[in-house]
Amino acid sequence: MDFRPSLDPNSEVPLYRQLYDEISKGIRSGRMGAGSRLPATRELAGLLGLNRTTVSAAYELLEAEGLIRGQVGRGSFVTGAPPAESLDWTRLLNPGTPVPPGSDASISFATSRPAGDLFPLEDFRASARAVLDHPDLASILQLGSPAGYDPLRRYLLESARAKGLAGPADDLIVTNGCQQALDLIGRVLVRAGDTVAVEDPVYPGLKNVFAEMGAQLIGVPDIDQLPRVLERARPKLLVLTPNFQNPTGNTIGLAQRRAALDAARVYGVPVIENDAYGELRYEGEDLPALKLLEAGAGSVVLLRSFSKISFPGLRVGWALGPKPVMDRLRQAKQAADLHTDQLSQAVLLEFARSGRLAEHRHRIVEAGRERLRATLEGCARHMPAGTRTTRPEGGMNLWVELPHPLDAGDLLARAQQEGVAYLPGRYFAVSRFVPGALRLSFAGLSPDEIGRGLATLGGVFRAEAERAAVAMDSSPAMV
Amino acid sequence: MDFRPSLDPNSEVPLYRQLYDEISKGIRSGRMGAGSRLPATRELAGLLGLNRTTVSAAYELLEAEGLIRGQVGRGSFVTGAPPAESLDWTRLLNPGTPVPPGSDASISFATSRPAGDLFPLEDFRASARAVLDHPDLASILQLGSPAGYDPLRRYLLESARAKGLAGPADDLIVTNGCQQALDLIGRVLVRAGDTVAVEDPVYPGLKNVFAEMGAQLIGVPDIDQLPRVLERARPKLLVLTPNFQNPTGNTIGLAQRRAALDAARVYGVPVIENDAYGELRYEGEDLPALKLLEAGAGSVVLLRSFSKISFPGLRVGWALGPKPVMDRLRQAKQAADLHTDQLSQAVLLEFARSGRLAEHRHRIVEAGRERLRATLEGCARHMPAGTRTTRPEGGMNLWVELPHPLDAGDLLARAQQEGVAYLPGRYFAVSRFVPGALRLSFAGLSPDEIGRGLATLGGVFRAEAERAAVAMDSSPAMV
Repeated sequence: MDFRPSLDPNSEVPLYRQLYDEISKGIRSGRMGAGSRLPATRELAGLLGLNRTTVSAAYELLEAEGLIRGQVGRGSFVTGAPPAESLDWTRLLNPGTPVPPGSDASISFATSRPAGDLFPLEDFRASARAVLDHPDLASILQLGSPAGYDPLRRYLLESARAKGLAGPADDLIVTNGCQQALDLIGRVLVRAGDTVAVEDPVYPGLKNVFAEMGAQLIGVPDIDQLPRVLERARPKLLVLTPNFQNPTGNTIGLAQRRAALDAARVYGVPVIENDAYGELRYEGEDLPALKLLEAGAGSVVLLRSFSKISFPGLRVGWALGPKPVMDRLRQAKQAADLHTDQLSQAVLLEFARSGRLAEHRHRIVEAGRERLRATLEGCARHMPAGTRTTRPEGGMNLWVELPHPLDAGDLLARAQQEGVAYLPGRYFAVSRFVPGALRLSFAGLSPDEIGRGLATLGGVFRAEAERAAVAMDSSPAMV
Repeated sequence: MDFRPSLDPNSEVPLYRQLYDEISKGIRSGRMGAGSRLPATRELAGLLGLNRTTVSAAYELLEAEGLIRGQVGRGSFVTGAPPAESLDWTRLLNPGTPVPPGSDASISFATSRPAGDLFPLEDFRASARAVLDHPDLASILQLGSPAGYDPLRRYLLESARAKGLAGPADDLIVTNGCQQALDLIGRVLVRAGDTVAVEDPVYPGLKNVFAEMGAQLIGVPDIDQLPRVLERARPKLLVLTPNFQNPTGNTIGLAQRRAALDAARVYGVPVIENDAYGELRYEGEDLPALKLLEAGAGSVVLLRSFSKISFPGLRVGWALGPKPVMDRLRQAKQAADLHTDQLSQAVLLEFARSGRLAEHRHRIVEAGRERLRATLEGCARHMPAGTRTTRPEGGMNLWVELPHPLDAGDLLARAQQEGVAYLPGRYFAVSRFVPGALRLSFAGLSPDEIGRGLATLGGVFRAEAERAAVAMDSSPAMV
């Protein structure tokens, strides 16, 4: 056997261990096949300039692991890696939930995220540098509190108080974005078998977090039906996205917000106000949050996040609500991951407190308005006759329903061949599935990309609509 | 009513909304008590230089919320905040798990964390600055992958491959430290009612994450009893901490590692190798990881983390194991919080790849050795006769058992009065509770603090031991 391991006598790793590692890797990688003979300990010791006991120790370890076997008078042979008696993981693993596929389409409407080319990199760097120069940098790097980095937590709570969102009975906990806030809320309020009422359609992240807990989801297709749904299903929890909902982009009106709160109060159902997009209004006037409208009744937990208005790669959001809930969320947060990353909390605090966040938000609201307009115009111009779209006033998403018999799921492959991606309706369906439905996430694309992408999509969809119309015409008449 | 709201005509917030906010805050804060009269709309409009319809719109909103009421011919009056018809959250919330209290003792042995004064701040800053200058900073700040920041994920996987830890059937996912890895593993493998075998004692974070899922914990007080425990309990999962376990500081020997793997294989139990401390060995020689010893059998998932060897405020760890498990963990990660913070992943990658992590580790191993020695010496010198301690060879923790009848839980208050804190054994007990037991986390304290802290603790414990001996002597003889 030609064998020349490279050992480092100055390493902290003992030589016998280095030798063991080298041979072990050789065997596991298949370079030293079963049956190969290892040099005798004396021979290898001489070859490598090692003490013979060093080689013996390595061989012993290899033998104890079943990788080699010594035969008296003949030396040591590779047995090969022991047969893998694999665990049947598929039997052990809890069933999962379908996650939307990624896409490498050149124009992708598939992800609800801000435009990377609008990130204010210099402002980000300035905020990060301020943190690096922070006199108490060491405490930012040290183990933190499950409630969040205290200066950020206090800043957020005071801002919420100044807006009338937080009362004396409220507290706030920092989370890894709204997604983790939903997860923690599920952990403290939902058990397998419980019912959770959500808008229908709703984004997969929200569906999956509760589905993975074994909850049963009840879809609310129309907010006006909410009282009926609550009365019938008596859910453990109601999750609403009042502003620019994902995927529809719809906003719940003021009267409907009041009615929803009334219904929730009548049936004793806590309300989770999922508000990642609320600060991205491009048209019309802000409506008061459910948390404000409930006027201290203590049945709403408000979730907000820096992700959609700044840098989603930094995972920082927060939950605001009655103290008993926040106390329990803090425990759940500690069990989940101890606390949210403190470097990002400190950088985002600096980004917000310095006014840079407000400036950036101003710019992305301008950009979002243009992009939304380009999306609505592109849909009007290119989509087949009979297509319906929502009319969002903000956010990142728009909902499209193609006319019968078009199936947005079936057509995705063709669109991707043409370099354009979107998410078909099935990922968002709760109780009601519309084959023609799809979500267009427009915020990450330039108006030009939006225009070109929708021209391509429209071409694919119109071609299919024409094909279907011809097929329909030429099919035998029903008698 | 004396009322002078400050409104900003240049704000993006419409004036009616600003006015509404101001009055609403006044009422909710109690500054405007129930019964106070609001100025007439015409009067207030004149006073503030506003259009009367602006004031009317604000009043309408206040009235719709029940905060004020208009009386014909008399004007509008504050009704006070509507009575809070509070939800009974205590009825709704799932039961929690006890979390150890924080401590403001001047010398605290209560937290297993590295010393903040050893943080290499300049090296951290240099790593962070390199990330700020990264040509692809925008993609670090953008929404990432649930598997982790890809350059870090590949770096960790390649390092693991080079050490023989990862085979072709393995994959790796980045998590928010080992704590989240445990949580995600629980989510994909454990259901309420399942049994999880853990060392006894074990740290609260590990107990709580499975307890919150409704799992039943089975304690393994002695690794030699593991086969019997597995045979009897047939747990869904076995979690072992082979190196410098928290809280005992104990290490599982090579023969015992093999026996544990054999037993787990015989009973088909997956093994979670929880190895946050493995790189902090102060004495003796490294032992091969279970993941290495299992030789590709695919039944071990290895958890490691940057937290204990660098900056715990940055929450980055990873799980390495068979692909089907990693695929499912990725789904669970997406539901839990989308992905781990990318800024910290990029900074830690730079910190590791530049060699700064290895240098830092070298220094903290030196420091840890000193601190462990100071702790063992302090215990030998100051603890009451009959005290037993473990003899860790690394890590951050040491386990102490005070002689009967001392109760470490009862004595904590007295120790804290003297300015010293620790965690009593009850937080770590799984099936077996030892009243005299306590954990000393020494890594965050200087040798001098350790010496002074143990002198104080020893004083408290010896005084109690003497008091107990006197009480025993003077108690009536049993007849």
